[in-house]
Amino acid sequence: MEALLRQSQSVCPFMKRASVATIRSMSTSARIVDAAKRCPMMKPALAASARGTRGAALGGCRAYHAATNPPRANLHTTAPKEAQAVDLPSPRDGYAPPPQGSKYDYEGFYKTELDKKHKDKSYRYFNNINRLAQEFPRAHMSAPEERVTVWCSNDYLGMGRNPHVLKQMHETLDRYGAGAGGTRNISGHNQHAIALEKSLADLHAKESALVFTSCFVANDATLATLGSKMPNCVILSDSMNHASMIQGIRHSGAKKLVFKHNDVADLESKLASLPLDVPKIIAFESVYSMCGSVGPIAEICDLAEKYGAITFLDEVHAVGMYGPNGAGVAEHLDYETYANGGSPRGTVQDRVDIITGTLGKAYGCVGGYIAGSSQMVDTIRSLAPGFIFTTSLPPATMAGAKTAIEYQASYQGDRRLQQLHTRAVKEQLNAMDIPVIPNPSHIIPCLVGNAEVAKKASDLLLDKHQIYVQAINYPTVPVGQERLRITPTPGHTREFREHLVQALDSVWNELGIKRTSDWAREGGFIGVGEKDAQAVQPLWTDGQLGLTEVVKEMKTGQGALGVLENILEQERPQVQQAVAAAA
Amino acid sequence: MEALLRQSQSVCPFMKRASVATIRSMSTSARIVDAAKRCPMMKPALAASARGTRGAALGGCRAYHAATNPPRANLHTTAPKEAQAVDLPSPRDGYAPPPQGSKYDYEGFYKTELDKKHKDKSYRYFNNINRLAQEFPRAHMSAPEERVTVWCSNDYLGMGRNPHVLKQMHETLDRYGAGAGGTRNISGHNQHAIALEKSLADLHAKESALVFTSCFVANDATLATLGSKMPNCVILSDSMNHASMIQGIRHSGAKKLVFKHNDVADLESKLASLPLDVPKIIAFESVYSMCGSVGPIAEICDLAEKYGAITFLDEVHAVGMYGPNGAGVAEHLDYETYANGGSPRGTVQDRVDIITGTLGKAYGCVGGYIAGSSQMVDTIRSLAPGFIFTTSLPPATMAGAKTAIEYQASYQGDRRLQQLHTRAVKEQLNAMDIPVIPNPSHIIPCLVGNAEVAKKASDLLLDKHQIYVQAINYPTVPVGQERLRITPTPGHTREFREHLVQALDSVWNELGIKRTSDWAREGGFIGVGEKDAQAVQPLWTDGQLGLTEVVKEMKTGQGALGVLENILEQERPQVQQAVAAAA
Repeated sequence: MEALLRQSQSVCPFMKRASVATIRSMSTSARIVDAAKRCPMMKPALAASARGTRGAALGGCRAYHAATNPPRANLHTTAPKEAQAVDLPSPRDGYAPPPQGSKYDYEGFYKTELDKKHKDKSYRYFNNINRLAQEFPRAHMSAPEERVTVWCSNDYLGMGRNPHVLKQMHETLDRYGAGAGGTRNISGHNQHAIALEKSLADLHAKESALVFTSCFVANDATLATLGSKMPNCVILSDSMNHASMIQGIRHSGAKKLVFKHNDVADLESKLASLPLDVPKIIAFESVYSMCGSVGPIAEICDLAEKYGAITFLDEVHAVGMYGPNGAGVAEHLDYETYANGGSPRGTVQDRVDIITGTLGKAYGCVGGYIAGSSQMVDTIRSLAPGFIFTTSLPPATMAGAKTAIEYQASYQGDRRLQQLHTRAVKEQLNAMDIPVIPNPSHIIPCLVGNAEVAKKASDLLLDKHQIYVQAINYPTVPVGQERLRITPTPGHTREFREHLVQALDSVWNELGIKRTSDWAREGGFIGVGEKDAQAVQPLWTDGQLGLTEVVKEMKTGQGALGVLENILEQERPQVQQAVAAAA
Repeated sequence: MEALLRQSQSVCPFMKRASVATIRSMSTSARIVDAAKRCPMMKPALAASARGTRGAALGGCRAYHAATNPPRANLHTTAPKEAQAVDLPSPRDGYAPPPQGSKYDYEGFYKTELDKKHKDKSYRYFNNINRLAQEFPRAHMSAPEERVTVWCSNDYLGMGRNPHVLKQMHETLDRYGAGAGGTRNISGHNQHAIALEKSLADLHAKESALVFTSCFVANDATLATLGSKMPNCVILSDSMNHASMIQGIRHSGAKKLVFKHNDVADLESKLASLPLDVPKIIAFESVYSMCGSVGPIAEICDLAEKYGAITFLDEVHAVGMYGPNGAGVAEHLDYETYANGGSPRGTVQDRVDIITGTLGKAYGCVGGYIAGSSQMVDTIRSLAPGFIFTTSLPPATMAGAKTAIEYQASYQGDRRLQQLHTRAVKEQLNAMDIPVIPNPSHIIPCLVGNAEVAKKASDLLLDKHQIYVQAINYPTVPVGQERLRITPTPGHTREFREHLVQALDSVWNELGIKRTSDWAREGGFIGVGEKDAQAVQPLWTDGQLGLTEVVKEMKTGQGALGVLENILEQERPQVQQAVAAAA
């Protein structure tokens, strides 16, 4: 039967593209043979087969499908549905002799793959960057005395060197050791995990939270589990979603509909086409890390409610940095309510079903999590292999992350200063005609537009100016949109900023990289130099930053740059005092 | 075109099982229409369609496939091949009204999934276990004064509290902070990663190594990448492989052939059926964690060479514990060569293509890795999303792990003592008629055979005897093979062992759990009570443990138990001295 089906593949245009698994699943029905006999394409093929030309019709796949043996199911007892199995003949006289021909060239395969990466300039060269806790945001290269300033770290708030976090980690390390010693189920569950998950649930005003080894795993495992378990689930995915979500959706095997980046109309048209009772997950981000754009969270919640979907919001590049408690952009959208300790009921954050975040960026440690309803969290806890079958994060990491979350929930200084530094750098770069892709967040993407030049610019900054900004090339961003991605932190004070801007100006000159005005002459590109582009308002308003008064002054005449610098100069000692007091 | 293909699904037995993706991929050829017109099944269906009955033929999928709109490709630019996309109509007059009917009940879905877990007794209750570095192998429960002895941790050698490891971590924490602050490509690469990967490559005598956030991710990402990228790759997988490998194979979409656990003949019959030039990966483990069995590594390498496959060996439950340098079972098989600093060329470890291991078990920290040829490692480094798009392990974790690896490479005391304690517990349990599933490794699986009873036994040990041994139930082990899994460490000295054995005896009595002799009366089960079962020799020989002399003595009359106890009593102060000297 299987031979017949396989044969049909070679003659029937409808069958040609069917997979081995499909062929196998068909091979249980005897009606297939009758149908084949009536088929104008199968009939002559069957006749030819009967005359002994079957080998040719099978295209030489003899080793895979020996016709003289009945098909056997050689499936793993826990065989996943996506994996394809191959039926094998039973060896009749002991072992078969080794097959003839040449073996597969594995090293040749690796070489080809690497050559491709070199050829399209997507091969990654890692820089040896040793970030110094006591000299944040400075680091040393391979030689301990060779200092550089890091301008692209995701330790956004410098929490990796926060004295409270480090103290907590030292103490936990001494008392509870270096590792968890097991999976959560087998001796790796402890008070640190319980307390951290409680802090995370509280932070997001959710019933429950679950910690993973990374948010890559959290996103992958959660989407893969929900998408594969909910019958006929459809996942609607923003076109600029992170690789972890793309992977989770792929692994779920669920239907996937990609909507245009931040395009609520496109999302609605897709939602409207689906039956109301079909389970749907809208997966998107709050801050998109490579361009700094921000998702329309409230509008997407509206659509989710209207069309019976749930929302899956990745706040990885927002937690710690937005909202009065640092819970992210969803919290920030109801700033006053949360700042005044109001009820979260009905807020945007409350309406989001699943929030995912990281402990490895603004919170300075490592790890990821999901937060949501207790039943949702318990389901993922109970079903996701990527959670179940892996060693827990070390107690010291969990304790340190908890301290970081609580510190940021009680102190706004770091994220305000981060925003002020971001505004200052953006303004200075705009004044220097250096192209910044506009966005409302803390990310400063400087458009280069060519992979080779972006790498050269990064190398030049490092070698000549002792400034580390990694080039972001394909596949992280589309070809032609290559950029330098700059992330100011509270530690990037005036001297560092001035040095950066001068260095960028020099590199732009040396490599002849297009200025904003050059892009403008070509009609603009992805927001850079676009004539009638709407001005982008930062998420953090002047009022939220405490700038309203000074900005009023600014409007009466003083230059923007000068005012911001003044604020920063005033802010700095205050912040330093506040940090000292908190410590 | 797509409508035609979809229609053909409803009438053609060959098409019925084709996926949406298959259908879409066919829809590019105009020849399909001609073929359909000549098909005895499609022809009448097409005619019916022309008369306007197509809606019925489509089986009512109107919402998904509105016939009046041309099909549009709504694929993500980076859409993975496994994910199925759904074509949608363009909204013609603004947005469609929300669909009628009831919304999907997400909380109901979660509840159903959780109910299933409760019903089949596979719902996991986590125990709050806080392992105390200064009192290893003791821990406290939720109350700090409530002490228990941990007998199921994977901190196999107590390296989580090793003073060298902790010192290194404290220093690194102070100098380089709590987190890496970025992915390996963007500011998260540093001297710690470089040094750790060098240590790992050296440990396994390989050209290169690559560190991941966990070995779950290492296995998943590596198998998924190789299996999906190598054309027509077939992965041969041991039937007892870990969930991470099963997931990686599934995610690869490659053909999967499962061979019987440790059955070289079955593996060979499968290899022999495949063409020599097809790429093949044999994925297996050295120590299988839930039963303690050991893979036939050398024999599998022979087969790999004969049939042109590569070997992928998971040494997660072996690194640190086997071999004179702690590189695992593959190294242990050439004990003398490695112990004497001989060339690794041609050794079993040298013949294995890809070795994966963990930093979170015997090395006491967290994280995982692969080791192999530099081109293989560079390919995974360059292609695997689970490596590329995730925050690096913290500098302190990497530095601590490196210290642990080097400590264990230079000191044999911990793993020898672990083996001696394991032998002692196994002998005592056998003497008490408590059923141990026989194996050559450090794992002691005590057969219970029922999920509910296994959980009760675990609870009773904890509540009544202050001993923590987690019950291992389905799906981690098959139904009917539920067990308590005991893992002795160098810290489980005589008092702890005697307490354990007495407690197990009491629990076995209290719950009426079958003894070895009970299983024997039923003919035996998975090695327990099997009459003519071959005696299992431990991987660590008496000679390698330095016992040869004493064992000679033992054979002249003294009871085995007594002799082992004597060795342990003699060994203990020596080991303590050695540890103190090393510190």
